[in-house]
Amino acid sequence: MAGGDILNKKLGKYTINLNSKPKILSTYSIVGPKEGEGPLKDYFDLIVKDDLNGKDTYEKAESSFVYQAIEECIKGGNKNITDIDYLIAGDLLNQISSSNFAARDLDVPFFGIYGACSTMTESLALASMLIDGDFAEFTVAATSSHFSSAERQFRFPLEYGSQRGPATQWTVTGAAAFLLGRQGNFPYVTSVTIGKVKDYGAMDPNNMGAAMVPAAVDTIKNHFQDTGRQPKDYDLIATGDLGKIGREMTETLLKKYGYDVKGIYIDCGEEIFDKDTQKTCSGGSGCGCSAVVDSGYIYKNMLSGKFKRVLLVSTGALMSTISSFQGESIPGIAHAVEVEFGG
Amino acid sequence: MAGGDILNKKLGKYTINLNSKPKILSTYSIVGPKEGEGPLKDYFDLIVKDDLNGKDTYEKAESSFVYQAIEECIKGGNKNITDIDYLIAGDLLNQISSSNFAARDLDVPFFGIYGACSTMTESLALASMLIDGDFAEFTVAATSSHFSSAERQFRFPLEYGSQRGPATQWTVTGAAAFLLGRQGNFPYVTSVTIGKVKDYGAMDPNNMGAAMVPAAVDTIKNHFQDTGRQPKDYDLIATGDLGKIGREMTETLLKKYGYDVKGIYIDCGEEIFDKDTQKTCSGGSGCGCSAVVDSGYIYKNMLSGKFKRVLLVSTGALMSTISSFQGESIPGIAHAVEVEFGG
Repeated sequence: MAGGDILNKKLGKYTINLNSKPKILSTYSIVGPKEGEGPLKDYFDLIVKDDLNGKDTYEKAESSFVYQAIEECIKGGNKNITDIDYLIAGDLLNQISSSNFAARDLDVPFFGIYGACSTMTESLALASMLIDGDFAEFTVAATSSHFSSAERQFRFPLEYGSQRGPATQWTVTGAAAFLLGRQGNFPYVTSVTIGKVKDYGAMDPNNMGAAMVPAAVDTIKNHFQDTGRQPKDYDLIATGDLGKIGREMTETLLKKYGYDVKGIYIDCGEEIFDKDTQKTCSGGSGCGCSAVVDSGYIYKNMLSGKFKRVLLVSTGALMSTISSFQGESIPGIAHAVEVEFGG
Repeated sequence: MAGGDILNKKLGKYTINLNSKPKILSTYSIVGPKEGEGPLKDYFDLIVKDDLNGKDTYEKAESSFVYQAIEECIKGGNKNITDIDYLIAGDLLNQISSSNFAARDLDVPFFGIYGACSTMTESLALASMLIDGDFAEFTVAATSSHFSSAERQFRFPLEYGSQRGPATQWTVTGAAAFLLGRQGNFPYVTSVTIGKVKDYGAMDPNNMGAAMVPAAVDTIKNHFQDTGRQPKDYDLIATGDLGKIGREMTETLLKKYGYDVKGIYIDCGEEIFDKDTQKTCSGGSGCGCSAVVDSGYIYKNMLSGKFKRVLLVSTGALMSTISSFQGESIPGIAHAVEVEFGG
């Protein structure tokens, strides 16, 4: 009965228990040439040679990548676009144009979202809730980013050659999609913890990892408190994308709150590149970064039985170029999605 | 039981029947001086004299308006921010900065969305579904736009004085919020029809009304087909924001599909200004336009018993300045939210 179930679904203040355990039927990840040379290269479904993908602009290329990821993901789950009740997608570009133009070519009800680099878990959380709330049989969550489109939107035209400091991150060229459904023996979403916007006054747009740390720590702490669990109950906790510097800060802060995550905690931005040979400073970033690591490395290691319970925590820095020019600090947000399989 | 209810909720292919009828407990609308001189001025909760709202930039002013609308709306429903399970908000600015910075100052789980001028019904649909899915006791849906921040982002700095043609629309300075809950004798959401991205090749960014018509027509037609209803079953259908030209095209096209909406159909963009005395060409636009008309004029006329069943259909043009410069046409989207009271 409506109204009767809410207490069963709510775990603590910020976490929702998804009783129907929405299943992740398939995923698909596409990355650019540089990501395809990194340590996780064997886990991606497609490594493109041409990061323009035959298009005449980087923006059109990015949109074509997320379109292709959505199509291949649906195909991989033996479904058609007409089976999909809702697509939930967003990206970093102004007016989320990659997602909008991909959705234009797909005949599907569409929720556009914006969560900067937290988009993968924001869309995955909504896609799971739409299934658990009995609104959908099948949903798709997707996102993308592209080094060249992000670089010129947020920094300068590529030709100017921005200088990079040790805290700088490298926007990942990549796109990923998750197909969710109600049935089958697949990794499933057991809970979601929705984040609040946190801002501790970080001002440096070249150190976005640090700006997102308070949000990541808050959401992970809320998840532990709401579920009554400890770090040892998880095989993996993966933030994205704080980079090496942000990952270290998160580890230190969580320990102060009594949660020692050492050994089970990684950051997708730190893992996707080899920082020594690939010169990516603090690591990768961009909506596509946690998206391809979650859908590639983590999902595939769940299917193979290596990880039984993981917590995916994509993190977003919510500034715009205008807000930074106007002297605003950088707010962050992080959403957590718990996925289990086997066990 | 999870999985058992979906057939009861789905009406046709695109419409969800919200069995729990989420209640709109309160709304709050804020408009700028120009909107406060228009034909609907008596329905807005606050008309500001200073469209900078004491801030040093228009972007900060816009963010302060949506923050204030959210706060006052929650207060109007006799709730506190700690009672709110989720805020769902978005706006037109790059990286939805008005919404992000408002959410930063509110201690609440936040879903950022982007639907251009369809944001009000996208957020209202999600806010209603989160309640109907038993994920929340209280949700807030909000959005904003500001003439001066939109004008300089999408066109030129104000000082350049853009020329305006007959199809041009005037971005509304306004913000609105809706508080939704589960109990009480208030107007309630009975169904939502989620839109698809439609693009019939419209290329003129100075005629966005026409670009959004195919999406508006598609969603309204899908709503009629899914529910088996006719225009006469509604007291009001309100698109936003197609302007006068877009409204006339929508009326003509719907008639071709067999739905004569004449007499019960308005467009929020056409209604908010007096086009002769206020020189607003085809009418108002911007996320704030349908937001303040829906939350002001329409909601208040439901409370007073004038309208018993309405269909709110906010419409968004999903281009960016970059996509238009790169020769892309303008895709549109429209989401419909059905609200009833009394009857």
